[in-house]
Amino acid sequence: MAADKADIGLIGLAVMGQNLVLNMTDHGFKVAVYNRSRQKTDEFIAAEPDNEKLFPYFDLESFVAGLSAPRKVMLMVKAGEVVDLFIDQLVPLLEEGDIIIDGGNSLYTDSNRRTAELKDKGIYFIGSGVSGGEEGARHGPSIMPGGNPLAWEAVKPIFQSIAAKADEQPCCDWVGDGGAGHYVKMVHNGIEYGDMQLIAESYHLMRYGMGLAADECQAVFAEWNQGVLDSYLIEITAEILKFKDEGGEPLVDKILDAAGQKGTGKWTGISSLELGMPVTLITESVYARCLSALKDERIKAEAHFGKPSAPPSLGEQEKSELLNAIHDALYASKIISYAQGYMLMTEAAKEFAWSLNYGAIALMWRGGCIIRSTFLGEIKAAYEKDPQLTNLLVADFFTSALKDADANWRKAVIFAIQQQIPTPALSSALAFFDGYKTANLPANMLQAQRDYFGAHTYERVDAPRGTYFHTDWIQSGGRISSTTYEV
Amino acid sequence: MAADKADIGLIGLAVMGQNLVLNMTDHGFKVAVYNRSRQKTDEFIAAEPDNEKLFPYFDLESFVAGLSAPRKVMLMVKAGEVVDLFIDQLVPLLEEGDIIIDGGNSLYTDSNRRTAELKDKGIYFIGSGVSGGEEGARHGPSIMPGGNPLAWEAVKPIFQSIAAKADEQPCCDWVGDGGAGHYVKMVHNGIEYGDMQLIAESYHLMRYGMGLAADECQAVFAEWNQGVLDSYLIEITAEILKFKDEGGEPLVDKILDAAGQKGTGKWTGISSLELGMPVTLITESVYARCLSALKDERIKAEAHFGKPSAPPSLGEQEKSELLNAIHDALYASKIISYAQGYMLMTEAAKEFAWSLNYGAIALMWRGGCIIRSTFLGEIKAAYEKDPQLTNLLVADFFTSALKDADANWRKAVIFAIQQQIPTPALSSALAFFDGYKTANLPANMLQAQRDYFGAHTYERVDAPRGTYFHTDWIQSGGRISSTTYEV
Repeated sequence: MAADKADIGLIGLAVMGQNLVLNMTDHGFKVAVYNRSRQKTDEFIAAEPDNEKLFPYFDLESFVAGLSAPRKVMLMVKAGEVVDLFIDQLVPLLEEGDIIIDGGNSLYTDSNRRTAELKDKGIYFIGSGVSGGEEGARHGPSIMPGGNPLAWEAVKPIFQSIAAKADEQPCCDWVGDGGAGHYVKMVHNGIEYGDMQLIAESYHLMRYGMGLAADECQAVFAEWNQGVLDSYLIEITAEILKFKDEGGEPLVDKILDAAGQKGTGKWTGISSLELGMPVTLITESVYARCLSALKDERIKAEAHFGKPSAPPSLGEQEKSELLNAIHDALYASKIISYAQGYMLMTEAAKEFAWSLNYGAIALMWRGGCIIRSTFLGEIKAAYEKDPQLTNLLVADFFTSALKDADANWRKAVIFAIQQQIPTPALSSALAFFDGYKTANLPANMLQAQRDYFGAHTYERVDAPRGTYFHTDWIQSGGRISSTTYEV
Repeated sequence: MAADKADIGLIGLAVMGQNLVLNMTDHGFKVAVYNRSRQKTDEFIAAEPDNEKLFPYFDLESFVAGLSAPRKVMLMVKAGEVVDLFIDQLVPLLEEGDIIIDGGNSLYTDSNRRTAELKDKGIYFIGSGVSGGEEGARHGPSIMPGGNPLAWEAVKPIFQSIAAKADEQPCCDWVGDGGAGHYVKMVHNGIEYGDMQLIAESYHLMRYGMGLAADECQAVFAEWNQGVLDSYLIEITAEILKFKDEGGEPLVDKILDAAGQKGTGKWTGISSLELGMPVTLITESVYARCLSALKDERIKAEAHFGKPSAPPSLGEQEKSELLNAIHDALYASKIISYAQGYMLMTEAAKEFAWSLNYGAIALMWRGGCIIRSTFLGEIKAAYEKDPQLTNLLVADFFTSALKDADANWRKAVIFAIQQQIPTPALSSALAFFDGYKTANLPANMLQAQRDYFGAHTYERVDAPRGTYFHTDWIQSGGRISSTTYEV
């Protein structure tokens, strides 16, 4: 009965799990499915009466027994303890060389740990990012697998079949050891936070800074989607602005402005702080969601401080110029955000001894996932042209894009400041850009202060790096310099 | 021989340890000292030949035996594992009711753990923040103790004697259970990062945006120190700018602009992300240090992108107006930073069930520590006036300060953007302020996007909170809505 055994088993029939299963059966794979509560499985099967590649199971023993060797079990369950609970239940049922894949948004450190623990038990673990939401999972997600490389050959044909394709290549390739796949997915999600925040700020600027109607904004985003900003998120923004409520009003106006923010965006910010990489745009985007959640406080504060003044009256020419300025600000800030994300991955690769292929990562994100865009094709091209590229910002394509956008970017942020429209991501990106291209920052003042109050010592511009000086600033004769205390 | 026993013992004779010991002996306390390497103890004792209150020891057994009961042992050693190593060595030598105090910059979660572990062994643990650098430790630091409240009565007379005084009260009071003292010290240090970064940006703006000489900047900071910005950090900034190198040049110009950033600033950022509080200014300040460390990359980037244009030529009137604008930008941003820090402490108190006295915390920071300022007196007053204050920004004093500064704040940030001077902290603070007082943020667009691509659902402005809606945006008939996946 080996012929009846499934090619892969999937546990967890929530939105992503169901859609991935259907994607797999579409591609000819037989899939065993299991869900903790029987009802979801029953409903799923009932909705797919003609799907002969679908094998429902209601206990884990039979589920595992129904898989061909090496058994491949994919978990699409809530990240965290639930993953460990399922792994604990599966291990006694599996044999050496079998594979467990975690396709949830797990923290990369958990995937590091699980890869090592399962390796000791002879089980190969894959921690894989899967992006694309409901539609992506159904018709072609971006898949970012990492973990035990011995698992890859067996899983590759399935994953590369179901993945999105960009430039005729699958948006799925081996990322690296241990938690590398989940790390790259985490940064992907962080970048997604940033892209969304940039769009939200641009929308806010045109809708409430300039006073455009929702339909006018819709037309702007639809037009932008034909140019350098061509991307899934810009596309759906235009679609969203088109959508009318029962009363004929834009539905977006009825949606409460309090956004959720638990998980991968936050982790990206934390990892950037741990590794000392200035990933300002993503972190500002996470904070913007935190601030959005303080809805009641904001309502009170607006009443307390007063509303900002109404939008200025703008001629057609001024309108068009301002919209171009906002376009360029969004584009330039997006370049900063991706550059920061790549800085973070590069540092993480050093820290965790991963050998990441940065061009391949851009290709994986090029299609299938939420941040898919033509823009990622340019990142791929930049890393193909120079695999040793220090920073995206100094790649020719992005340097000239930043130079072209420079004046307009400043114009848009200044307009925001004048209109009291908060643009934390647009303005943080600009401050980062100005800092990055400043050879001499005022951190010399910080070092002087630290040496003044804490005898922390400093380096000098006219002495070799690694030579430390201490000044007795107040000539007190204090004789102690500190190496222990950090401020 | 009980009379010869020391009142307290201190381990770790680096800069802070030595100065704290001398402060204690100044106040009449007998102090036993021990250092891992004998040489430091010998040198310390040799430098204090007439100090009869000083009892050096060269092994831990005699050191502990030399303390009066309940024994109080204060660790001034490197935060982290070293603290645990000393605790492990001390515990067998101590008796029930004895006290171990950790005065280093330990992570609050470590202090939570140590309080609990030592409680089980009958030892009372105090984790205490100590701020003030070398001078503060010597003549009166700010001390923020938390941990096991049973320890406080025995330690209080020593700590409150050696602490700085402000308004005739000691800048030291019991903060709360477990890691509360170290948490408050961590936020203090984060705020210190922010204060320093704000000063550095203001300095950068006047020196390189406006083209002032170091001496002119010195005069500005000295003048500012007479007004609302009166504080230790502004004072030492003026002192630093006065200090000339051997060649008669400002020493600050010879200091390398690459700042260290490991430890408490980073932890504040991480904690704010974990707790979902938008502490943007401190985190931007940490990132500014991270960016400063990329010195070689910045030098190359300046050559690649070109230097910003020279400062504009400014008349006396314009100069004076711009300096006022920078002053107000610094002041308003500082208000934002402290408000964010207090938001974080309030959230942490909820999370960890600490009962924090916010006015008392302002008093502890009012003197002795690096961020001491008249400003903190206003914070204390605001919390005394209304202990239930939701947010510092809506306290009368700070609201009117922000309103007064508003136009100038925007002017300074706009000037920075035009001159390509990076002001991540000043501009992030402004974006936060504008966001905080905006009743309707564009997070409704984020929620629409999340529901579009991931069926995440949203709340509506016209429905009660906690009611979730999903729209089939593309009318695909998709029937699955997600609760498991978070983006």
